[in-house]
Amino acid sequence: MSEKKVTLAHGAGGRQTSELIHSVFQKHFANPYFTADDAATLTLPGSKIAMTTDGFIVSPYRFPGGNIGKLSICGTVNDLACMGAKPLYMTCSFIIEEGFPLDELEEIAAAMEKTAKEAGVCIVAGDTKVAGKGQADHVFITTTGVGALTEGVSLSGAFAKPGDKVIVTGDVGRHGCTILLAREELGIDAEVTSDCAPLWGLVEAMLAKTHDIHVLRDATRGGVGTVLYEIAAQSSVGVEISQADVPVDPAVRGVCGLLGLDPLYLANEGTMVVVAPPAEAEMLLDVLHAQPYGKNAALIGEITSANVGKVVMATEIGTRTLLPQPGGELLPRIC
Amino acid sequence: MSEKKVTLAHGAGGRQTSELIHSVFQKHFANPYFTADDAATLTLPGSKIAMTTDGFIVSPYRFPGGNIGKLSICGTVNDLACMGAKPLYMTCSFIIEEGFPLDELEEIAAAMEKTAKEAGVCIVAGDTKVAGKGQADHVFITTTGVGALTEGVSLSGAFAKPGDKVIVTGDVGRHGCTILLAREELGIDAEVTSDCAPLWGLVEAMLAKTHDIHVLRDATRGGVGTVLYEIAAQSSVGVEISQADVPVDPAVRGVCGLLGLDPLYLANEGTMVVVAPPAEAEMLLDVLHAQPYGKNAALIGEITSANVGKVVMATEIGTRTLLPQPGGELLPRIC
Repeated sequence: MSEKKVTLAHGAGGRQTSELIHSVFQKHFANPYFTADDAATLTLPGSKIAMTTDGFIVSPYRFPGGNIGKLSICGTVNDLACMGAKPLYMTCSFIIEEGFPLDELEEIAAAMEKTAKEAGVCIVAGDTKVAGKGQADHVFITTTGVGALTEGVSLSGAFAKPGDKVIVTGDVGRHGCTILLAREELGIDAEVTSDCAPLWGLVEAMLAKTHDIHVLRDATRGGVGTVLYEIAAQSSVGVEISQADVPVDPAVRGVCGLLGLDPLYLANEGTMVVVAPPAEAEMLLDVLHAQPYGKNAALIGEITSANVGKVVMATEIGTRTLLPQPGGELLPRIC
Repeated sequence: MSEKKVTLAHGAGGRQTSELIHSVFQKHFANPYFTADDAATLTLPGSKIAMTTDGFIVSPYRFPGGNIGKLSICGTVNDLACMGAKPLYMTCSFIIEEGFPLDELEEIAAAMEKTAKEAGVCIVAGDTKVAGKGQADHVFITTTGVGALTEGVSLSGAFAKPGDKVIVTGDVGRHGCTILLAREELGIDAEVTSDCAPLWGLVEAMLAKTHDIHVLRDATRGGVGTVLYEIAAQSSVGVEISQADVPVDPAVRGVCGLLGLDPLYLANEGTMVVVAPPAEAEMLLDVLHAQPYGKNAALIGEITSANVGKVVMATEIGTRTLLPQPGGELLPRIC
């Protein structure tokens, strides 16, 4: 086993930086576009693109179901997918704490490449900076993605219409719950795995059947509850959901019960909210159920003209309640 | 004066994150492309693009001649410019330490917008993460840029040819020297200002006159010396430069003399190495001298078929010496 560690010289731009790039990043990210120059030169299939960026500082950087590398690809792929854009090219920028083990960096790079391949995206350029011991916490990654917008598809948080159905593509709260447990401060032992997954395949399958979808949004930080409030505000509509219809993994439900948490406000990294006209809803559910990352998809509610800007939930005990306004999450560094 | 500070809630993805985005980032980065959705949707003038990313962790984050915000725009704009790509769109991802003053964050955002405007680039999407106190050092920024490749221009570190002339677009070592002095550990008081500047205007002016340029490379971490070694290796050529012809600001020369440093190995953030056929060299120098960021441009040497992979320097005392192989920089977190 290698005991080699990242040093400040690895971030100095000279020989050691080149060696790190060759031995870790180029080895894993090998593709015809990966650049040795200042920028990658790329060809796009059309002139309409989507572009997005996300920084990842998840702690711990390894967790059941993934690591910061896998997460950094999924997060950006999913943001592109939410715009109906086929992910094409990505860049990644590493900020590494001095002393970080090289073999763990390689493990992260390997996870990135595996996930990028699954998502059909090429990592074309990168950057490596090294901060002194105690000036960064292990490793931070920022990924940026460019995707080709699908012709005739127009998605936005502002496009929800009264009568539209609200679907979640999977059970909710798994990533947030996983990180909570992985911190080991709680002493709770539960079998929970992050939902972290690249979702372009799932979106592509839906768009192959219909372009009549109004909103796609991945429910990351803040969870499904926050996303529903965002949609309510952006579209000037209300949202009404049924608590009994929200899919929650039994282990996640157990942990949430113990800690008094609502899985609707725990982060997901492989679960989207879909808002679509009622005529499309059943068909979309069928499409989702046939996909590996959509098998737990469920219709959880609908868009209303009443209660503009608010999210109302019919509870399991038959009452109606306002979902709490999203605030600060209880757990920092979830992604 | 505001005493407000960044809190963990600002990075949690809920209401406080929205407020931060509105009050700081949207306020400064207002443009038609800036997105409230998961990704910005953009139109490109053609299908050939360049894409690059860079993380910035410079310490201190404010220095004479700029701050981390200005630097984060210049670094990425200049990487695109080095490929002959007109910078069009940028994303920025912030990793902020809990407790960072909001008014300083705003100062950084203002510098980014000012520099982006000068460079003709739009900031279209961003991300904000907050790390706990002591888990990041003040603020880190990763920017990613997409630019339109200029038709008929083909630039690469691999395209240098024996006989080509080597030009630097400005005096060397100012950024590295500035950061060194800004750390205040040395107690040296010298009037040195970072060369930090967006260089697309300078490249555009050169490309308007000729497409017959072989290499453009901005001499950031590792300085001009490292870039020349990179070109020597990528192009399988030698490089010969004349020490007397390398422009160095007198204050930088003084500091380097005191500390035994070579300005050729200090970082620049607004200075490029240009390699071009001899027939173009004088004309390019004229073009550069007419530009605000090129007025100190100088022809410093040429590409040789001898000494493949090496950089030879004719010294001011008439001897010839091998420029030292680039290694780790003496100063971490220079950019």
